[in-house]
Amino acid sequence: MGLPCHLSTAPDAIMRYVMKLSELGEFGLIAAINDTINKSRVASQPSWQKLVTGIGDDAAAWQVKNSLQLATTDSLVQDVHFDLDTITWEELGWKALAINLSDIAAMGGIPRYALVSLFLPGELETENVLDFYRGMMRLAGNFGVAIAGGNISRASYIITSIALLGEAQDNTLLKRSTASVGEQIAVTGYLGLAAGGLKMLRQKIALEDTAASTLRQGLFLPAPRINEGQTLVSRGVKTAIDISDGLVADLYHICDASNVSAVIRTDMVPTHLTVQACFPDYLNLALYGGEDYELLFTAGSDTVERVRHDLNCPVTVIGEITKKEGTAAVKLTNSKGETVLGEQRGWEHFKNGRYDSPLS
Amino acid sequence: MGLPCHLSTAPDAIMRYVMKLSELGEFGLIAAINDTINKSRVASQPSWQKLVTGIGDDAAAWQVKNSLQLATTDSLVQDVHFDLDTITWEELGWKALAINLSDIAAMGGIPRYALVSLFLPGELETENVLDFYRGMMRLAGNFGVAIAGGNISRASYIITSIALLGEAQDNTLLKRSTASVGEQIAVTGYLGLAAGGLKMLRQKIALEDTAASTLRQGLFLPAPRINEGQTLVSRGVKTAIDISDGLVADLYHICDASNVSAVIRTDMVPTHLTVQACFPDYLNLALYGGEDYELLFTAGSDTVERVRHDLNCPVTVIGEITKKEGTAAVKLTNSKGETVLGEQRGWEHFKNGRYDSPLS
Repeated sequence: MGLPCHLSTAPDAIMRYVMKLSELGEFGLIAAINDTINKSRVASQPSWQKLVTGIGDDAAAWQVKNSLQLATTDSLVQDVHFDLDTITWEELGWKALAINLSDIAAMGGIPRYALVSLFLPGELETENVLDFYRGMMRLAGNFGVAIAGGNISRASYIITSIALLGEAQDNTLLKRSTASVGEQIAVTGYLGLAAGGLKMLRQKIALEDTAASTLRQGLFLPAPRINEGQTLVSRGVKTAIDISDGLVADLYHICDASNVSAVIRTDMVPTHLTVQACFPDYLNLALYGGEDYELLFTAGSDTVERVRHDLNCPVTVIGEITKKEGTAAVKLTNSKGETVLGEQRGWEHFKNGRYDSPLS
Repeated sequence: MGLPCHLSTAPDAIMRYVMKLSELGEFGLIAAINDTINKSRVASQPSWQKLVTGIGDDAAAWQVKNSLQLATTDSLVQDVHFDLDTITWEELGWKALAINLSDIAAMGGIPRYALVSLFLPGELETENVLDFYRGMMRLAGNFGVAIAGGNISRASYIITSIALLGEAQDNTLLKRSTASVGEQIAVTGYLGLAAGGLKMLRQKIALEDTAASTLRQGLFLPAPRINEGQTLVSRGVKTAIDISDGLVADLYHICDASNVSAVIRTDMVPTHLTVQACFPDYLNLALYGGEDYELLFTAGSDTVERVRHDLNCPVTVIGEITKKEGTAAVKLTNSKGETVLGEQRGWEHFKNGRYDSPLS
């Protein structure tokens, strides 16, 4: 397993990082990586100087002449993020691109080019892989994305890894770090479909056709909020994130980055009607399920009102940004203002698994 | 396994693609994917219009205002491209970035930003992952590359997938498709170290320290020819590729893209002295081994002479571009002009495996 690395590192590093990834968790690992990069980078180099947002937002952004370039990358791993018993190859192609488009949407940007890396077993049928591209191309065509290149490697199971490049509108970005006390917290669309769809498929729950197909579409064919993100930017919103890890988890990301806290009224969370109708625990699915790829944003009430008027999708105010006391926290309350439910954040790699995975 | 895809496709597609990836091979699959993308893309969209090179060159290139942006992506898969018995984590970090830098070098470009995606088992020690970043940052610092973002996912074995973004010098690119009959074929540096290093490690061949360390460095710490690629562009060279699949295989890529053939004088191939000293089959290692990450380029003899004068590394003329008769071909000759050796192209995913892989 290579060098006995911990012997060659500084004492504080030994104290922090002699632990397995499964103990540290995804977000702890990202913090440790960020720290390592910051210690070893040559900050005076032009690329670092022109980097506007790096690790820690939905997408990276840097200045090229008088435009702001965006880049993001996201992956789907077989038996971690999907299984081939339930998703079709066309849906997989759509979703692999959609999760990246959603990151560009969360920056309010314009998507342009994709690099598509696939890791595939040799015994796959070629037509399956081509169906993957057909599904991806349908979504790419909707948003003017060109497939500029990619890479194919052999592996024992399927992984998709797409890098998506884009551009900011008018050099302006939606960030995670700009929420301020007193702002309203709002969300586009309805929540819980993806988590409901996953629950239906994993637990083989029989539902009537319309409900089943709505849930399946929510899980496998999410519609990234590209146009909505651009409208948010143009109407003066500064802070947004896409809901991939879960409403509460992603609100934590905003609170951590902005150094604030938040309070949500759970009775105002816009759970999708199909989810309400099919699942007694619908509120949990909406709060913690993730993969809805709606936009969660904060802004003053006038701005939210303007956005609500101009968007072609529902916009629901669900809470308010509050002053941070101690650590950043997301408090959930009912209609009477009473605190409800325990603290739970959402999806985290190395600590959670959505699928019954054979992986360690 | 998803939809019965072949039922829903056109008859010609049925005839071509009812086969497994292991039968079709990496390059056949890339051609089929390219075909699928071309049939389903909306060619009138601005992103497609501004795409200067897409699939089929070392990196993609597109116009952003008056500059030419470059992007490439390449991956390392555990037990396909490396194993942890031989490579250290720092070396893995260096190499994961180096193979991408080499693609930018082959375009004559300036590297700027990297997005780093890692797929990792939960039982890994955190310090190993941080050592990966330390190795990568050493190389990134050498060439002014900033780590702009990335993604971490859980998986059962290690995969690195880096997307590297850059910029063309003076809006000019080195391409694969511009070789013309009568041009000289030249190569930077010396060949065969990576293949020799792999052979030494796989076959546990005991060599004296200096040789062993030279071979190991060639395999695990390749030095991408970024500065040399930029010099080629500025001295008027139009055609280049980096040697990743192997000298012969990569020359085939140039011949296929440029619609020409080539003849190489095997006695002129600059095999590294250490490889010559350690391996009786040194010429095969230099011709077919791959992973040398030297630049292979074609140009008129005056241009080659100018480049040779201006570069700080060896430049060796090894042959000539010839007229294509029938299919593109790379002919190998000895010093008397007699054809030698059989036809063999080099590394291809799904058909080859460098390591004793447990993968299918």
